[in-house]
Order: sequence, then C-alpha cells, then structure tokens
Amino acid sequence: MSLPIVLALDDAAKDRVGAAPDVALAGPDGQLLAVLRSFRAKTTLNTWQKFLPSLLGLQIDNWKKRMWDAMLALRIKFKVKIWHKIQRGLVNQDGVILIQKSGRKYNLERFTVHPPVSMTDCVEIYPHNKEERIARTWGTTAPGLPYVDEAITPAGNWLIGGDLEVLQPIKYNDGLDHYRLSPQQLRDEFDKRGADAVFAFQLRNPVHNGHALLMNDTRRRLLEMGFKNPILLLHPLGGFTKADDVPLPVRMEQHSKVLEDGVLDPETTIVSIFPSPMHYAGPTEVQWHAKARINAGANFYIVGRDPAGMGHPTEKRDLYNPDHGKKVLSMAPGLEKLNILPFKVAAYDTVAKKMAFFEPSRSQDFLFISGTKMRTFAKTGENPPDGFMCPGGWKVLVDYYNSLQTEGAAAAPAPATVASLLMPSDLPTVQFFSFKIERKILKLGTETQNVDRLSCNRTANSVIIL
Amino acid sequence: MSLPIVLALDDAAKDRVGAAPDVALAGPDGQLLAVLRSFRAKTTLNTWQKFLPSLLGLQIDNWKKRMWDAMLALRIKFKVKIWHKIQRGLVNQDGVILIQKSGRKYNLERFTVHPPVSMTDCVEIYPHNKEERIARTWGTTAPGLPYVDEAITPAGNWLIGGDLEVLQPIKYNDGLDHYRLSPQQLRDEFDKRGADAVFAFQLRNPVHNGHALLMNDTRRRLLEMGFKNPILLLHPLGGFTKADDVPLPVRMEQHSKVLEDGVLDPETTIVSIFPSPMHYAGPTEVQWHAKARINAGANFYIVGRDPAGMGHPTEKRDLYNPDHGKKVLSMAPGLEKLNILPFKVAAYDTVAKKMAFFEPSRSQDFLFISGTKMRTFAKTGENPPDGFMCPGGWKVLVDYYNSLQTEGAAAAPAPATVASLLMPSDLPTVQFFSFKIERKILKLGTETQNVDRLSCNRTANSVIIL
Repeated sequence: MSLPIVLALDDAAKDRVGAAPDVALAGPDGQLLAVLRSFRAKTTLNTWQKFLPSLLGLQIDNWKKRMWDAMLALRIKFKVKIWHKIQRGLVNQDGVILIQKSGRKYNLERFTVHPPVSMTDCVEIYPHNKEERIARTWGTTAPGLPYVDEAITPAGNWLIGGDLEVLQPIKYNDGLDHYRLSPQQLRDEFDKRGADAVFAFQLRNPVHNGHALLMNDTRRRLLEMGFKNPILLLHPLGGFTKADDVPLPVRMEQHSKVLEDGVLDPETTIVSIFPSPMHYAGPTEVQWHAKARINAGANFYIVGRDPAGMGHPTEKRDLYNPDHGKKVLSMAPGLEKLNILPFKVAAYDTVAKKMAFFEPSRSQDFLFISGTKMRTFAKTGENPPDGFMCPGGWKVLVDYYNSLQTEGAAAAPAPATVASLLMPSDLPTVQFFSFKIERKILKLGTETQNVDRLSCNRTANSVIIL
Repeated sequence: MSLPIVLALDDAAKDRVGAAPDVALAGPDGQLLAVLRSFRAKTTLNTWQKFLPSLLGLQIDNWKKRMWDAMLALRIKFKVKIWHKIQRGLVNQDGVILIQKSGRKYNLERFTVHPPVSMTDCVEIYPHNKEERIARTWGTTAPGLPYVDEAITPAGNWLIGGDLEVLQPIKYNDGLDHYRLSPQQLRDEFDKRGADAVFAFQLRNPVHNGHALLMNDTRRRLLEMGFKNPILLLHPLGGFTKADDVPLPVRMEQHSKVLEDGVLDPETTIVSIFPSPMHYAGPTEVQWHAKARINAGANFYIVGRDPAGMGHPTEKRDLYNPDHGKKVLSMAPGLEKLNILPFKVAAYDTVAKKMAFFEPSRSQDFLFISGTKMRTFAKTGENPPDGFMCPGGWKVLVDYYNSLQTEGAAAAPAPATVASLLMPSDLPTVQFFSFKIERKILKLGTETQNVDRLSCNRTANSVIIL
C-alpha cells in the first residue's frame, strides 16, 4: 500500500530529517510503521527508467528513434498515458519537454528534449502556511474551529510530503481494531458477501430509528432497481470529534445493539470504522468523505440535507450555504462514479408512534429530535418517545452519560490522535489513514531505526510526526 | 457568445430581479448589453427537451423503450455525453436518476427514474458570503488585499448566477477598444496570420528589454522545434490594478513604442488587452490567467519565477509559497493542453551593457532592476542604464510621471470597473469578461428594457450590477 501524503513536523524533527531520501515513521513503541519516500523520484525518474531504460545520455536523434520503437511496442492507449506522465512530471524540473498536441494526437516531429540536469532525491519539506491552509479548507480564519484548535494550531511549522508506504496495518489497541478495515479489506468483504451494490452511510452520532428507516428504505429502492444483494456500509467516523460528541467506543457499542436488536440486518450490513478525524469543514470535507467511500468500494452514497454543515464560530449564522455540500458532490472532479442519494427527512410521527418520513401536509404530527435534544434526554435520564431508538442502543447512551456524572467529568476526553491529513481542494486520489500516538511515549520515536529490510536498502531517519 | 457567470448585487437590485426568469444587463447609457439566463433550465430541461422531446409524463416502461430508441439512433460517444449531462444535471433536483455504471458501460436495466416534479426557471440568487469567497480565493482574510478592498468589500450582499448571453461587444470608449479582442477575434487573427504556435505573455507592467529578450528567445526556441510561424500574444491586463501600477493607457502607449522601435517584431506580435481585473491572488489567479489564454487560442504560456506572487498584507512574509504558482499550473485540471514555458531570469549585464539572461557564474556583472526601481527612475527623471528599455518606451513613462507631478496627484485614479468575476477553485470553462460602468450614470440602469427581440421573447428586468 502506498499513498501520497503530507504531514506536519516541528523544527527539531525537520532538522533530524535533513536531506534524507526516505523517512521512517515509528509508532508509540518505536516500531517501524511506514516509510515516506520522495514523490519526485517516483513520478519522474522511475517512469523514465521503467519504460525507457537507456534514455538519459542519448543524443536527441537516437532518442527519438528509441521513443518511436518504444511506442510502437506499446498499445496506443498506454502511449498517451506515458506521454502525459513525462510531460507533466518534468514541467517543474530545470529541463523541459515540449510536446505539440493537435487534437488527440501528439506530433512527434515537433518536440525537443532537455533531460533534467539534476534530480533531487529527498522527501520534500516546506513551510506550513497554517493561515492559508485554514482559509482554503474552512473558508474562514475565525478562531474556534474545532479541528484547527485541536490539530493545526499546535502542529509544527513545516510540512513534509512524499509517497507513504505503510509496512503494516496501524493498530490502536483499543479493542476496536477489528472494526478498522482498510479499503481493500472492505472490498474483499463486499466480494465475499456477493454484493452487487454498496451504499455507504457516514455518521458520527448514535443510530436512531430515523437513520435506520433511511438506510432500510435505500436498500428497498436498490432492490426495486434490480440489484439482487445491496450491502450497507455503516461507516462511523473514528478520529477526532468535538468534546460534546459521543465518543467512539460508546458509539460502536450502540451500533452493535442496533444490529443485535434487528433494527439493521446484520446479514446485509458491514460496520467499519472510518479512521479519519472530523474536520467540521463543510463542502471541502464532504468531498473527502465521499471520495474515501469510493475508494472503499461504495457506489451509492447517502447525503444529508446539509452535510458537514457548521455554525460560524464567532458569528450568528451558518458558516456555509446549506446547499453547497450537495452541490460540490455533484460537481467535483473524481466523484462522477458515485451515485448520490439525497437524504429524505425523517422525524418522529406522534400519531404512528415511530420514526417516519416527514410529510409536510401533516407537519403538526411530527416531532424533530435533534442530536442536542437526544443527548439532553440521555443526560437527564428522560426517555425519548417510544420508537425513537431501539432500547438496547438507548441504554448504551444512558449508561455513558451516567458514568460521566459519576466521574464528575463534563465529557470523556477525546482520544489523543495525530490527525495529519491535508485536504487539498483538488483531492488527489488518497486513501484514508490516520495515526494515533500516545503523547507520553513520544520520546521513544527519536531513536534511529534500521530499515535495511526495505527495498530501498538504506538506513532512514526515524521520525515521530506531531 | 454565452458563458456561466456569477455577479454581485445589492438588496435593492435583488428585489428588482425578484423571480425573473432572465435578467438583462444594461450599460452606462441604458443600452442592453447582455442577458443572464437560468443555468438550470439550460443544463437540464433543455437537454432533455432537445434529445427526448416527449419524455416527461411517460410511464417508466415506455420511457425506457424510448430511451433505447434514442440511444440506438445516436452514436455511442454521444450517448455517454448525454447520460453524463442527465445524470449530473438532475442530481440536485427533487427527483433523481440512478444509473449503475460498470467500467465504461452503463447498464440500462438497472435504473429507475423520478422525473423532476418541479422545475424552477429563474436565475439563481444566493447570499454573497464574502468571508468565504475571500478566504478560498486568497488563502487569507487579512485586511489590505487590493482587489478585496476595491471590489469585494463594497459589493452587494447577494450573488446572482446564470448563463450570460452577451448581445454585443462591450465598449469602454476610451480609445483602446480596438485592442480589446474577444477570444474568438484573437483566434481569427492567429488564423489570418497563419500561426502554427501561439505563445502568450501576461503582464501588467511596461515592457523592458529583459521581457523582450525572453519573448524573442521563446520565438527562437519554437522555430528550432520546427514551428514555422510562432505568433506572440502580448496580453496586458486591462482591468483594475493597484494605484501604484502604471495605468493602462500609458502602458498601451509604451507597448506601441516597443513595437515601433522594433524591440518586438510587429509582424509576429499581436497586442491585445486582457480585460480582467488583477486580483493579486497568487496560485488561484495564475490558473485564471492561464485558462483564459487557452480560451484565446494560446498553446504556450510563459510563466515567471513567482507568478502573481504577493507580500502578506499585514505580516512581513510572502503570502504564498513562491513555487506554488508554477505547481498549480502543472497540476490543475483543464490546463493540460497548455505548454508551460518557465521564465528564464533576465538582468542588466553591466559588461555587455544590455539585458541578458542571468549567469550565476559571473553574478557580480548583473544588475537587477525591479519594477519599483524602474518607477523610481522614471519619477525622479533619472535615466536607467543604456539598453534597459527602448528610448521611445522610456519617454512614455517619464512623460507620465512628469504629468503626475504637474497635476500634483500621487497617481492617476484607476478606471472605475465593475470587476465581478468569481474565481472558483475548480475553474469552470469561462471566457474572460468584465464590465466598466461609470458610477455617475448608474441610475439610468434602473429603467426597464424590452427584450422581446431575444429568443426568449419575454420582458426581462433591467439591472445594473454593482
């Protein structure tokens, strides 16, 4: 597994990395988890070397001849891809390749080549412009954005970029690792169950019967459309969440009860943790959520009225236009493959005494129970109306809030996570990934690790990323 | 000519527009310039109506049959495009089309259709979230950004979006309109001259001999590459610029002298005004500059060391990483067609007494003359070194600064422009366009215009956009 990634690091870590060609990432016990390699070496030199081994150093005419031969030996479609890679990969080098494109064809007579004179071979480190990152991701720099306060402001002043090779699955050792399936593991699981459609549901709250109604209704519609075995991916967010959100372990227990009580069918549901931190970043984050689920094999995605909507941290208004989340999903490059399923609004029907799709014609019969209201019920020991949530699931929440009051704590501390993903607006093809490192044993990470068992056969610096 | 566009408008204008299906844009004399139409009507209903005239109202089975027939009658490539349009165009409606895509093929058995139940047919008006717009465009919300202060802060609190049909070329009546060629006019001119390569040079400063060296050297390289007739598009920015930049009329006169004096060859150079305001927005703006030149027919684009680089308005640092301008050009979707030509650094060679490409091995022989230094020379009446700029061009600048001192003004007022283009980060295919409206005669714009000569055959509201 290898993916492009950017991580923050502080001055001391930057000095330790120096001009290393590769950087090792170590876990809390000092064990080697992953290696960060240079982008550039991979996207330019390796491409050349792979397809045109003796290219560099040849005369131009000779080079042209060889290029012709190589192209004739390859299929046309492949050829175009190589050209693109060469053309784009070298644009930022000192040398440059110029290719005249007319229509869909490249005219090979009309180019000259200046092979790159120098090829650096180290990971890229550059200043962490926090203001720009925050402004472009959240569309505001106002103080009080939860993820900014948690992860960006305290992060180091440098960014390190490269291609990350993960050597072994990241373990959190919190009893929930069996829920943390990689995209490939999820795809394998869908295959194993013979899914011909996968619909994903993103959430960071307990599942109430309104959610369940929506998911079961989606399955019904997919069956009607002719799918034989649609599988639900219930994909709760597993990284950082706000202090007043229900913590992950409690939510996972609640989700288990929902399946045990038969509100969702265990045969057609896969529960897995999406190990991303919550950014509370509106339309930007919505793309990340959708793209990650495409990578995990979903082809249908249920989207709420105002996905990842947020109040402005300092003004009395929404931070984003409520329609923009859905709009970017329908417009963003790379998301064309996903079928977006609009959320129908569910509410508590006081006549039928169950959660049902809201009917505007008899709006007085419906009761909207927000997340805040639900938490208040659970905190004060008051029961929500019958049929709002299955009893087993509700008990989990009540027990959690009781335990908080016993401990006298306002809320359980959020797990310490190292949440280090950038969300560029153009969303390169990344898979989700996050580290959790206990702060108290960070010092272990400064030891040098021998990584000569890796293919690069070099000793890399071992660095803990903050 | 028709293009998607977003313009700002104030509360009063918003009320006047109401739920109008189309909105007319009037010029300073009240003459009708353009009509803004609904996006939605164009991208969804019209597409359906065009290819599937009797679609709405049919039963599903009947509909499927007709769809098959329509598809069989069309070429496969065309079919896929239609599908995309239908699929994407309807995602945001109340109804939804679900299409199962496997590989490159659409499986027609697996979909159901809910034709949109309501189809609004008015231009879209929504709140102008200035903070979000500024943050996402500039990567900061710090006070003092020139274009923000000039155009965004004083703009109305609403945005109006639609498809703009321009009825006649916009005239500024400032004696420079013959320089304002539309993208189509530029393409026609390139064809007329038999250009087989067009290389564009973006600038907002007077042309000195270093610029000329670069442009002439580019032409030489293109000839070496086998092009027979490369044409230079000298494309100075014609909209808003900072108060201390040299005003457009002076720059155009200076550019004329550069051609008259033979520094650039009039036979192979087209001088045209790029009527965009300068946003001073770094990497975001660089994409706009490049994309606009693609639309105008350029296939080579000369890019500086730090295109559209800016100092931070309140901190002592660069606002952007100097490499990011070039990087986004090599990565942004939609810019693949353009060949980016890196800027070689030119400086004054004190030995050869002319502008020459900088040679690091004898750096002590070179003198860098910045824009600020050049302006100081011209202001104080001091001559720059021989060979820095052609005498005719230099005289234009000296005369301009003399006239300023005579008038006792610090700088000529910038022309009043209505600079109303949004620059979304995904850069839809837009052509450049801007309005100039004299503020003193704005009131004329409130009169209602009869637009029944337009195809829509409706009377639209006439609105002046601030």
